[in-house]
Amino acid sequence: MPKKNKSSSDAFVAQLKKTGAGVDAMLDKLLPKPNGPEGRLMEAVRYSTLGGGKRIRPFLTIHSAALFGVAKESAERTAAAIEMIHCYSLIHDDLPSMDDDDLRRGIKTCHIKYDEATAILAGDALQALAFEVLADEKTHQDASIRIELVDALARAAGPKGMVGGQMLDLVAHEHNFDMSEVARLQRMKTGALIDVSCLAGCILGKASEHARHMLHGYAHDVGLAFQIVDDLLDYEGDEETVGKKTGKDQTQGKASFVTMLGAEGAREQARALSAQAVEHLAIYEKKAEPLRDLANFVVERLS
Amino acid sequence: MPKKNKSSSDAFVAQLKKTGAGVDAMLDKLLPKPNGPEGRLMEAVRYSTLGGGKRIRPFLTIHSAALFGVAKESAERTAAAIEMIHCYSLIHDDLPSMDDDDLRRGIKTCHIKYDEATAILAGDALQALAFEVLADEKTHQDASIRIELVDALARAAGPKGMVGGQMLDLVAHEHNFDMSEVARLQRMKTGALIDVSCLAGCILGKASEHARHMLHGYAHDVGLAFQIVDDLLDYEGDEETVGKKTGKDQTQGKASFVTMLGAEGAREQARALSAQAVEHLAIYEKKAEPLRDLANFVVERLS
Repeated sequence: MPKKNKSSSDAFVAQLKKTGAGVDAMLDKLLPKPNGPEGRLMEAVRYSTLGGGKRIRPFLTIHSAALFGVAKESAERTAAAIEMIHCYSLIHDDLPSMDDDDLRRGIKTCHIKYDEATAILAGDALQALAFEVLADEKTHQDASIRIELVDALARAAGPKGMVGGQMLDLVAHEHNFDMSEVARLQRMKTGALIDVSCLAGCILGKASEHARHMLHGYAHDVGLAFQIVDDLLDYEGDEETVGKKTGKDQTQGKASFVTMLGAEGAREQARALSAQAVEHLAIYEKKAEPLRDLANFVVERLS
Repeated sequence: MPKKNKSSSDAFVAQLKKTGAGVDAMLDKLLPKPNGPEGRLMEAVRYSTLGGGKRIRPFLTIHSAALFGVAKESAERTAAAIEMIHCYSLIHDDLPSMDDDDLRRGIKTCHIKYDEATAILAGDALQALAFEVLADEKTHQDASIRIELVDALARAAGPKGMVGGQMLDLVAHEHNFDMSEVARLQRMKTGALIDVSCLAGCILGKASEHARHMLHGYAHDVGLAFQIVDDLLDYEGDEETVGKKTGKDQTQGKASFVTMLGAEGAREQARALSAQAVEHLAIYEKKAEPLRDLANFVVERLS
């Protein structure tokens, strides 16, 4: 599989940062400032939401929306709402009764920096805020578009999506998951939110069924590739580079794509998925370049 | 203050149960059935949501909606969504890092029956499901009504409402809250959701600004009366009758309406608020009888 050269990868990282900076500014604007004796809540929310992160999901929303000429504010607000759901899920996943992680994105996790109760509430607040942002007419003037976004995000975040996937992850050690079950876990736990990130761009842009279908295929492949690479980094990476504890899957005896396919098999699978993701974008020509670059970037983390 | 006689109180309890049974049936229909290895999640959700409760908030929504001739299904679905938010907040409030309660509505709390991680996820799932229900066109055919419901519920549940109030409650022991601060805590922690329960009926019924204003006043007074009575029951009640641990406010040194006003002062305040709540309903004549009965019922728990 041909690799992109270093300079094109650098150009992509610059674009990812630029898109991310726009999303960070929007998040900063949308998240209420700490105020009153309860200010600790929004301090914790802002600490965990504005503290870095690659903003992959917002990137997907913004550059999917761009395919259909969506206004920048609509796309950025929607992207910020989806990122709020992602950040809430990280805060809750890191809790002692869940993955029990002290480190996230290279800084203390929310319950370590604050405390467990505050972290639970910070996640809860972020979920409510995400839907409040989508419901606001500044996100889109058409109420039927906004309600479609709410519906899509609620489904992606709910028991048949992200939260269900997290439950599945927690009980995984009690089962002997095969490859298809591990893939289902991933589709729910991380895939649903990646999928809705692209779908949201389509909803905002009133995209055709065909366009939605293509972007759904792209999101599926990129999401799966992303997870496989994450598993590989957990398997092979060091904490400093990855920014969180590594080697957890092995320690906890969790089934992952690496334990299923072996490191080399997983690597090949990720590269094949990345290439397949790009194929879904064929109809969009140059406008889809950022989404293509992302699909390549996901597997470049392996090199 | 004149008390209602026993038989009218019994009639109200029967009506509360009837309205509650309709909401229970709706919740049972709306909450996905446990399925697959992640079935534990929906088991926990259903255990904590369908396990009793007076369904005060749904009662408010359904009988506020009835003032404006709203279709039963719309009112019941909206009521169920609001009750999902309430139930999620109870599950999270009961967690060891929060109020650390083992008993709720006379049965084991979610994290005792299942485990902490499952309880956190069950609350998270309920919040997402609530918004999914509101977004569904079966809740109301008009997208602008549905998005108004989402907006109102997200605000009520978020950092300026319920979750902010819970944070305030957690830090209350570090402060010396005066009466107005205790009232603000209550308005956020429980008042916001009671308020949106009435507001939702107004939104569904496209009620006038004046009607919304009146029902907002009613909800404010009933909500505050309700909290004062809760504080009194915590102060005076026994666990068996109340269905949860009592005497916690004193043990934890928490400022409450009883510590502020004394037991007799709190009792008088609750009765005055109940009477004032009823006055807001004057324009509705007979149609508002259930809401009036509820305002009376709240303080009858004291006798």
